[in-house]
Amino acid sequence: MKNIKIVAPRTLSGFMELAPRKQVQFDAIQAVMRDTFLLYGFTPLDTPLLESSEVLLAKGGGETDKQMYRFVRGEHDLALRFDLTVPLAKYVAANCERLAFPFRRFQFGKVYRGERAQRGRFREFYQADIDVVGDGDLGAINEAEIPGVIYKCFTALGLNRFVIRINNRKALSGLLEVFGLSKRAAEIMRALDKLEKIGADKTRELLTDALGVPAAAADELLSLLTRRGDALAALSVYSGKSATLDRGVSELGEVARYLGAFGVPETHFEIDLSVARGLDYYTGAVYETRLLDHPEIGSICSGGRYDDLASHFTDKKRLPGVGVSIGLTRLFYVLNEQGYLNKEMLTAPADVLIIPMTDDLSGAVSLATTAREAGIRVMIYGEDRKFKAKLAYADKLGIPFTVFLGEDEISSGKITVKDMATGEQTTASPAILCEGIREKLHSLRAVAPVSEKTGI
Amino acid sequence: MKNIKIVAPRTLSGFMELAPRKQVQFDAIQAVMRDTFLLYGFTPLDTPLLESSEVLLAKGGGETDKQMYRFVRGEHDLALRFDLTVPLAKYVAANCERLAFPFRRFQFGKVYRGERAQRGRFREFYQADIDVVGDGDLGAINEAEIPGVIYKCFTALGLNRFVIRINNRKALSGLLEVFGLSKRAAEIMRALDKLEKIGADKTRELLTDALGVPAAAADELLSLLTRRGDALAALSVYSGKSATLDRGVSELGEVARYLGAFGVPETHFEIDLSVARGLDYYTGAVYETRLLDHPEIGSICSGGRYDDLASHFTDKKRLPGVGVSIGLTRLFYVLNEQGYLNKEMLTAPADVLIIPMTDDLSGAVSLATTAREAGIRVMIYGEDRKFKAKLAYADKLGIPFTVFLGEDEISSGKITVKDMATGEQTTASPAILCEGIREKLHSLRAVAPVSEKTGI
Repeated sequence: MKNIKIVAPRTLSGFMELAPRKQVQFDAIQAVMRDTFLLYGFTPLDTPLLESSEVLLAKGGGETDKQMYRFVRGEHDLALRFDLTVPLAKYVAANCERLAFPFRRFQFGKVYRGERAQRGRFREFYQADIDVVGDGDLGAINEAEIPGVIYKCFTALGLNRFVIRINNRKALSGLLEVFGLSKRAAEIMRALDKLEKIGADKTRELLTDALGVPAAAADELLSLLTRRGDALAALSVYSGKSATLDRGVSELGEVARYLGAFGVPETHFEIDLSVARGLDYYTGAVYETRLLDHPEIGSICSGGRYDDLASHFTDKKRLPGVGVSIGLTRLFYVLNEQGYLNKEMLTAPADVLIIPMTDDLSGAVSLATTAREAGIRVMIYGEDRKFKAKLAYADKLGIPFTVFLGEDEISSGKITVKDMATGEQTTASPAILCEGIREKLHSLRAVAPVSEKTGI
Repeated sequence: MKNIKIVAPRTLSGFMELAPRKQVQFDAIQAVMRDTFLLYGFTPLDTPLLESSEVLLAKGGGETDKQMYRFVRGEHDLALRFDLTVPLAKYVAANCERLAFPFRRFQFGKVYRGERAQRGRFREFYQADIDVVGDGDLGAINEAEIPGVIYKCFTALGLNRFVIRINNRKALSGLLEVFGLSKRAAEIMRALDKLEKIGADKTRELLTDALGVPAAAADELLSLLTRRGDALAALSVYSGKSATLDRGVSELGEVARYLGAFGVPETHFEIDLSVARGLDYYTGAVYETRLLDHPEIGSICSGGRYDDLASHFTDKKRLPGVGVSIGLTRLFYVLNEQGYLNKEMLTAPADVLIIPMTDDLSGAVSLATTAREAGIRVMIYGEDRKFKAKLAYADKLGIPFTVFLGEDEISSGKITVKDMATGEQTTASPAILCEGIREKLHSLRAVAPVSEKTGI
C-alpha cells in the first residue's frame, strides 16, 4: 500500500457543519421560511458569494471593512459578501431597467464576517432576507405587510412565544426634535439602542452625562420609550410640535391598523418607541423580533424602511424599500441550544428500509421502485452484515418502517412492514402497504420543525 | 443632496446571476433533483465553502491547485472549495465514528474554479452530488442504483432524449491486460477518453504513434470500444484471459441486470466500453450521461465507483463508495441556450395580484390573508399608479390571476377574478374563488421545468 500523508479532517472554527439529522432540521426550517416568503409574492434571488471588493465596499464600511474576507487574485481585488443587502443593491441597480417595481425578492445565502470566533458566533452564516424595493416611491402598505410575513414565518415554524416590536424612525427623530436634541440625534439613538441591554438608569446616565441631555428631557424620553401598549397614545400630547413626529406617528398608526387584517394578533406585536436599530440607513418603520422566553438572544428578525437602496450604484433612480433579515445560522444554533428543535420531527434519510433476505435483489429493487413511485423515500440495505447490524442501522437513522424481504414474501406477493415506533407488523400486497405507509407519513411529515415544549 | 461616488454595479465575469424568472426555473430544477435524491434515501449535507487549503489540497492537485481561489487571512491559509468530493471526504473522515454506513448523502453547493472565463464556462458554479459511502465494503447493488437515480432525476425534470452510458474500470483495465498494454494503462485510458471528441482515426493514431500500441491491438480495441448494444457479449471471447476483465464483465452484467427493476428502460442506458472517465480514482462502474440531441455538450452527469474516499484524511477506515455529480449551473446554461426551459412553467412571483381600488386597503389585505391561508401566493399592489401601469405590472411578471377590489366588491362580498391567460372573469365569494384558483394552479404547478419541444 502506498504511504499516504494523513491530513487532519478539520473544519474551520466559526463555520457550522451539522450532523445529518440536524441538517434535515435546518433544511426544514429554511423550507418553511421559503414557503412563507413565496406566499407573500417574493421571488427567489441568488447572487455570487464572491464580488469585487469595490462593489461590496461602495458604501464604505468601517467595521464591515475590517471583518471582510478580502484577497487579490491576479488583477482582481475580491471579497466574500458580508450581507445580502449590498448584493441586492448591486443587482437592482444593474437590472433596474428590466425589473418590474415594486421588486419583491427573498434570498437565502451564506455571508462571511471574520469576527473573533466565540461560542454561538459564526464567520460563515446563512441570512434569510426579504425586501420590497420601489421605483421612486413605495406604498406604506408594504411596511405593514412585513410584520405579517414575520408572524406567519415564525408561527409556521412552530414558534408562538415571540413578539414583533415596531417603531418608526421619524417618530423617534421627531421626538428628539421636540426635545431640542436633533443635533446629537445619531449619538442619542445609539445610546437609546442600548436601553434594553444596560437598563434605564445607565441609559439616563449616558444621555445626561455623556451627551448633555437635560435631566428632565432624559426622564421624559425614557418614560416614553419604556411604555408598552399605549405608546402611540402617549405621543398625542406632542401632536403639532414636529412635522416629522406627526408623520412618524401617522405611519406607525397605519402599520398598526393593518396588522389585524394581515393576520397578526395583538399579542404578537407592540409599538415600542425604544427600537432604534443602529443604522442611519433606516428612515421609516423599524422592526425587531424577540423570543419572549429568551430576551438574552436579542432580535431574531430585524429590519426596516429605507429611502434609497442603491444610491452608491446608480443615480438614475431612487429606490426606497423595506425589508428584514433573519440570521438563520444563529437562529438555528439558538433553537438547538434551547432544545427547541422538535424531537417529533422525522429526520431519517428514508421512510422505509428494505432489507433483502435473498441473494438476488431484484425483488427488493422492484418493491423499492414501486414505493418510490408512490412518493415514499426508500433505502435498500444491500450490505452483507449480521441481522442485528441491519436492524441497528434502521434504528440509528430513525427510519420509521422496515421490510424484511425473503423468498416467501416475494413468491406470495405479501409483504410485511414493521412500524419501528410501535413494533406493529402489517402484511399485505405492495400497493396496499404503500397506501398505508403514505397515510402514516402524512402525519409524520406534518410535524413543525420547532417546538417550544422543551420539557418532553 | 450629498455627493455620492457611484460605483458600477458589476458582477464578476464567470459568475452566473439570473433574472428573476430564470431564477425560478433554476430553483425548480434544483427542487426536482432534491426530491429525487430524497426518494432514494440520500440525506442532505451542507459544508463550508471556505476550508483550510491544507484540507482541500490533501490529495494533491496539479490543475486543481492552480485554479483554486486561495488566500491568506491572518495565520490562516484558506481556499474556496473546488468540488464537493473533498469536503465529503473530510466530513466522513471527521465523523466516521458517528455516522451510520452506508452513508448516503446529497449536496447542492457552489464550487469555485478560476478558469479562463469564456462563454458557458463558470468560475462559480453549482454542483449537485450524490454519494453512497460504505465502511470497509459496499454492496454492488449501489452501483446499479445510481443510474436509477439519474434516470428518475432527468425524466422528472422533463428530459427524455438522453442516455446513460455505463462502463467498468476493471473491464477496461482487464482488456488492456489481455492486450499486454497494462504498463501504459493510464495514458491509454486518457487517449481513449478522447475517442468521442477526436474520432476513431485520430485515437488510433494516438495509440499507435504516440503510445506504441501495435496496430492490430489498436484496431481490435477500437472496434470493441465503438460497439453499442452488444458490448458485453463481444467481451465473452476474452473470458478467462484476465481475472480483472472477468470481474469487470461480471460487475457490468450485474448492474445491467438490475437496471430494469430500478425502472430504467433499455432505451436509456448502454454499456459503452469507451467510457473511461479520466480520473485514476475510479475502480469499478463509471457513468456518463449524454443528451442525444446535443452530444457536443458532453456528459451532464458523471461519476463512478471508488475504492477509498478519504485515504488522505484517515487510515482508520477504508471508505469505498459510488457517486455522480451534475454540473447544475452548466446544465442550466445549456438548457437555456437550447431553448429547453419550459415556457409553460409558472415563473411569476405570485399567483394572484390584488389591485385595490379604495384608499383603505383593509379589504385587500383581508382578501390576501384568506387566499394565503389557502396556499395561494398573493401580492397586493399598493402603489399609486395609473390603471394601465397596474395591469402592465401583472403582465410583465406573468401573474396568472388579477383581482380589482373596489367598494362594491367589498360591500357585496362578491369578488371578480380575471384569468390573465384567457381573459375569463369569474365573480364569487372569496372562499369559492380561492377554491377555483387552487384548482387551476394545480395544473399550472404540475408543469415540468424542462421541455424538449423547442418548436413551440
